Amino acid sequence: MRTEPYRLTATEAIKTIRAGDLTVEDYARSLLDRIKERDDAVRAWIFLDGNQVLEQARALDRLPKEERGSLHGVAVAIKDVIYTKDMPTQHNSAIYKDSMPEIDAGSVAMLRQAGALIFGKTTTTEFAANVIGTKTANAHHEGRTPGGSSSGSGAAVADFQVPLALGTQTGGSMIRPASFNGIYAIKPTWNSVSREGQKIYSLNLDTLGWYARSIEDLTLLSTFFGLKDDEIPRPLSNGVRGLKLAFCKTMVWNHAGSGTRSAFSTARSLLSSSGAHITDLSLPPEFQSLPQLHTIMLFSDGRVSFLPEYRLAKSSLAADLVEHVEEFHGYTRKQYLSACDTIAALRPKFDAIAEEFDAVVVPSVPDVAPEGLERTGSAVFQGIWTALHVPIVNIPGFTGEENMPIGLSLVAPRYRDLHLLSVAEEVAKIWVREPLELPEERRKKAIA
Amino acid sequence: MRTEPYRLTATEAIKTIRAGDLTVEDYARSLLDRIKERDDAVRAWIFLDGNQVLEQARALDRLPKEERGSLHGVAVAIKDVIYTKDMPTQHNSAIYKDSMPEIDAGSVAMLRQAGALIFGKTTTTEFAANVIGTKTANAHHEGRTPGGSSSGSGAAVADFQVPLALGTQTGGSMIRPASFNGIYAIKPTWNSVSREGQKIYSLNLDTLGWYARSIEDLTLLSTFFGLKDDEIPRPLSNGVRGLKLAFCKTMVWNHAGSGTRSAFSTARSLLSSSGAHITDLSLPPEFQSLPQLHTIMLFSDGRVSFLPEYRLAKSSLAADLVEHVEEFHGYTRKQYLSACDTIAALRPKFDAIAEEFDAVVVPSVPDVAPEGLERTGSAVFQGIWTALHVPIVNIPGFTGEENMPIGLSLVAPRYRDLHLLSVAEEVAKIWVREPLELPEERRKKAIA
Repeated sequence: MRTEPYRLTATEAIKTIRAGDLTVEDYARSLLDRIKERDDAVRAWIFLDGNQVLEQARALDRLPKEERGSLHGVAVAIKDVIYTKDMPTQHNSAIYKDSMPEIDAGSVAMLRQAGALIFGKTTTTEFAANVIGTKTANAHHEGRTPGGSSSGSGAAVADFQVPLALGTQTGGSMIRPASFNGIYAIKPTWNSVSREGQKIYSLNLDTLGWYARSIEDLTLLSTFFGLKDDEIPRPLSNGVRGLKLAFCKTMVWNHAGSGTRSAFSTARSLLSSSGAHITDLSLPPEFQSLPQLHTIMLFSDGRVSFLPEYRLAKSSLAADLVEHVEEFHGYTRKQYLSACDTIAALRPKFDAIAEEFDAVVVPSVPDVAPEGLERTGSAVFQGIWTALHVPIVNIPGFTGEENMPIGLSLVAPRYRDLHLLSVAEEVAKIWVREPLELPEERRKKAIA
Repeated sequence: MRTEPYRLTATEAIKTIRAGDLTVEDYARSLLDRIKERDDAVRAWIFLDGNQVLEQARALDRLPKEERGSLHGVAVAIKDVIYTKDMPTQHNSAIYKDSMPEIDAGSVAMLRQAGALIFGKTTTTEFAANVIGTKTANAHHEGRTPGGSSSGSGAAVADFQVPLALGTQTGGSMIRPASFNGIYAIKPTWNSVSREGQKIYSLNLDTLGWYARSIEDLTLLSTFFGLKDDEIPRPLSNGVRGLKLAFCKTMVWNHAGSGTRSAFSTARSLLSSSGAHITDLSLPPEFQSLPQLHTIMLFSDGRVSFLPEYRLAKSSLAADLVEHVEEFHGYTRKQYLSACDTIAALRPKFDAIAEEFDAVVVPSVPDVAPEGLERTGSAVFQGIWTALHVPIVNIPGFTGEENMPIGLSLVAPRYRDLHLLSVAEEVAKIWVREPLELPEERRKKAIA
């Protein structure tokens, strides 16, 4: 029996289409059917026009084989803070209702040029800048948040509605939805991929990232977007055996709930018994203030970023963003510069520490997705790595309360993204023993 | 006899319009007449629609007084790498010919909201990212470059075609045209003003700036855009008397030609005889490699920024930008990170040095605008300050070969922009003894 197309990973879909075993149109129809079936529960999309998708799909099918790009036909969802020339970009802001700048972000332009099927726009918290929930539910539980700010992108990939989605991270906006929805995500090294056409919250922190249901798919987009390490990652022929892995609870471990604590210890045992060399890593005391410095940077950058919207339509701007502009936080320019300079000095120091290991394992989130859709959860475990500009990959595989998914993350020094992915691929084989399941099937088992 | 409206500074125009002594339409007509008269010689505009300008002007005139903004009626030119919702944004790139994203950049949105008359789009080198000249000539000499990359903005303000213009600086793209065309410019502290909707060359370096024909006008836009120092600048009641000013020739002084050398020594004597305390400042040896580090950062960031255009239409991209993407420069990620980290460490060190003075006087350019329109000149004296993220203000007032204008710049620590402007105002009184003249009148004197 043939796998239903919507179940394919991106790599599988591309291969199947390339082999002539699936048209882009049939592939698109399968995804649209899946969405139709599940959208009442998940509501991941803020803009999705089935006819437009099918038109794009048919145009791709008509393209002569020799003109087809490396991503020919594969569906990608786009977080709604990233410009798409043929769909509105609304930032979950009344100010931008139905706004359609008719330009592709750099990332979208590259995807489109390579033949990707730009599927639709996924929900985001307002300007990807706060934690007030959207209409989107967790793919695994209608009553729990999918996380944010890349809420729709995380939920859509987890729910097999698309195999790939773009998101962004300024605090924990890529990794949190990945962990809450039980999928893979990478936030690459800061400024390693074009951010042209992606709304600015913090120039110093915002990073484009992507979701997938396999490390192979994350790697596919990573090399596609031009990520490259100085050294070609060495093949890991022995799996995790002999890998040097550090476990770092971080300075905010007191925020870890039972889900993360249990995942951390299970992860450690699994890797240890598979022959990895495990070290417990404590960051030096000078890293202690990093979460606070990240907040100072974030809020101060928000003052600059949202001043135009504040001037245009203050009353339509979320209260917390108004507070950024009005300097409610009270941070001076001097404190801001001190935060920038201190963080900048910590970056090479962390690189040097992480360089001693094949990867550093860190918590992704405090615990499983909280109940309720009102708020998207805490970024406390992520601001650190976003500030340090290092690549980070979420790997699912663990569970907490109500069998909800929980992930852990791997980090590496800046510009060792491909190395990190090759390590993540082996680690995932240990942590995620079976391919990811359809959320509703997984849930049935949990309830049973 | 009433001053012809096109001769007004921005502050004067706003005041005159506010007093009811000038309609926005009559003001716009005066500017359009000026442009008509001079456009064959200067060619500063890549998009200018007189009817659209007059329509905007009439709409502003119809606005009830109580709804008028702080910049009501004043004309501002926009460099063509900054989005304007009602005009094309073409980046001087065939790839973006006639492209019109129908969105305002953050800066333009703020200007428009405050009632500024968005006049048209001014020429830029390709993506503000190289030194290949545009069609624009220096306002003072048809056979000489206006500088770049903000070529049209610098020339248009110098030529009294508009009192204000937005530009950008990544190397020396604000200050070079200011010096070559004999006007004022500020490149404020990096990331102190929204860069939303401004094409990216280097995320680490690109900074929005503005041109004017008085410091008062630079300050007007600076406070308008939300620049604020931690401490309110103290009033300089004694002019430059008692000010502590450092003269810093920089590590690239060997690039200074006779124009800059003579301006530097004249400037020093003028300030000294006016009672300023002058110190000669040499930056410590660790600053020596800053120009090279700036280049590594710039070219490496260009690799990321132009990858989308490279993928879309490599053959339409300038050869030097293709070289960035293809890593023709050969810089590794490691060298890039080392450049980022070293520059980041130098920023607070320079702040501490500059903090000891009211301002640091530095060269703006090697010399007067070179002959020919093929190339826009050297940014050698500017990359340093752009990399350090410090605010810098060009002050005209000197002359070199063929009586061509030449300026010098004042720099201050990061986020002391308003302080810097208040010092610049007093320094300008010493250096620029008369109000700026119409280029053609100035030229007549030079030839006579």
